[in-house]
Amino acid sequence: MTTARRDTYTPETLLSVAVRVFNERGYDGTSMEHLSKAAGISKSSIYHHVAGKEELLRRAVSRALDGLFGILDEEHACVGRAAERLEYVVRRTVEVLIAELPYVTLLLRVRGNTDTERWALERRREFDHRVAGLLRAAAAEGDVRGDIEVRLATRLVFGMVNSLVEWYRPDGRGTSEREVADAVVQLAFSGLRRAA
Amino acid sequence: MTTARRDTYTPETLLSVAVRVFNERGYDGTSMEHLSKAAGISKSSIYHHVAGKEELLRRAVSRALDGLFGILDEEHACVGRAAERLEYVVRRTVEVLIAELPYVTLLLRVRGNTDTERWALERRREFDHRVAGLLRAAAAEGDVRGDIEVRLATRLVFGMVNSLVEWYRPDGRGTSEREVADAVVQLAFSGLRRAA
Repeated sequence: MTTARRDTYTPETLLSVAVRVFNERGYDGTSMEHLSKAAGISKSSIYHHVAGKEELLRRAVSRALDGLFGILDEEHACVGRAAERLEYVVRRTVEVLIAELPYVTLLLRVRGNTDTERWALERRREFDHRVAGLLRAAAAEGDVRGDIEVRLATRLVFGMVNSLVEWYRPDGRGTSEREVADAVVQLAFSGLRRAA
Repeated sequence: MTTARRDTYTPETLLSVAVRVFNERGYDGTSMEHLSKAAGISKSSIYHHVAGKEELLRRAVSRALDGLFGILDEEHACVGRAAERLEYVVRRTVEVLIAELPYVTLLLRVRGNTDTERWALERRREFDHRVAGLLRAAAAEGDVRGDIEVRLATRLVFGMVNSLVEWYRPDGRGTSEREVADAVVQLAFSGLRRAA
C-alpha cells in the first residue's frame, strides 16, 4: 500500500501529474491506479476532482488546443499579407509548443480510440485546415511557391514544427526558444540553401 | 483457444506481422501472446523462428537501419559537393522511409528500455551525426547557410522527413512517393518563399 499524501491538489496541478503519466505510459496504458500512485493520493481523491481519466485527457488536450487556436485570433495572424500572417503563425506555434510542451506532446500522440481522442484529432485537422488556407492565400498572392501541393506543404512544415516534442528539452544545454523559433521560420520559408 | 493455423511462416513474414503489432500496441505493450494471436500460430511455433520478441525487434529495426545506412554508402552520397550529397541523402531517406514504412515507423518510436532499443537509439544518433557532418561540410563549402546551428538544422530537416511515418499512407489517394520526395527536398533546401 502507498501511504497517501494529503490531497493538496487543485484541478490544475493534478492535470500536470496526469499529463506526465499519459506521456510516459501512453493514454491507453494508464489506469486510475497509475494516476493515484503518481499523484500520491487515493483514487477517490482523484474522483473528487474529475470524473475519470478521460476528463483529464480532455482538459489536457483542450489546454494545448486553446493555445494553438488562440494564435489564429491574434492580430498578426489576421491582418496583412497571407505570407506574413503564415510566418507569424509558424513562429507562434513553435512558442506555444515549447510553452505547453507536455500538453502539446500529448495532443500529438492522441490516436483516436475514445470520443475525446476523436474530438482532439478533429480539432487538430481543423487547425491544419486553417493554416493550409493561409498557405493557399499566400500562394495566390504570389509570395509563396505554388509548385508544392498546399496540404502536403502544410504537413511537412508542421512535421518539422511538431518534431520539437520529440527532442526539445527546455533545460537542455544551449538552444533557446528564440533560436529554435528563428531556425524553424528560416528553414520553412527560405530553406537550407544559401541565397545566391 | 485460438485454432492455430499451420505454421507457414518464414522469419521474414513473421517479422512483418510482429512489426504491425508492435506499431499498433507499442513494443512494451506487446506480449508473445499478442504475437501468437496476430500470426495465428502457437507461441512455441514462434519460438521455433526466434528467441523472443526482442529478437523480432532487433531484426525489424536492423532492417530500417540497414536501409538508412546503406544510403550513406551510395555513390552520390560520397562523391561531389557536400550540398549535393546532402540533397541526395535527404531524397533517398524519404524513399527508404516510404519503402520500409512500418520498419522505420517502429525505429522512430523506439524509446530505450531494452538493450536492443538502446542500441537502435545509438545507431539513429550515429546516422544523424553523419548527416550533420555533411551539413557542416556544405556550410564550409559555402553552399548552405551558416546561420543555423548544424545540429538544430539537422533535427528540423529530419523532423520534417520523419513526420512522414505519421501521415503518409501508400494507398492513400494522391500523393506519390516521387511528389513527396520532391516536396521535401524543395522545402528543405529552398523553403516556401517564392524566389524573388
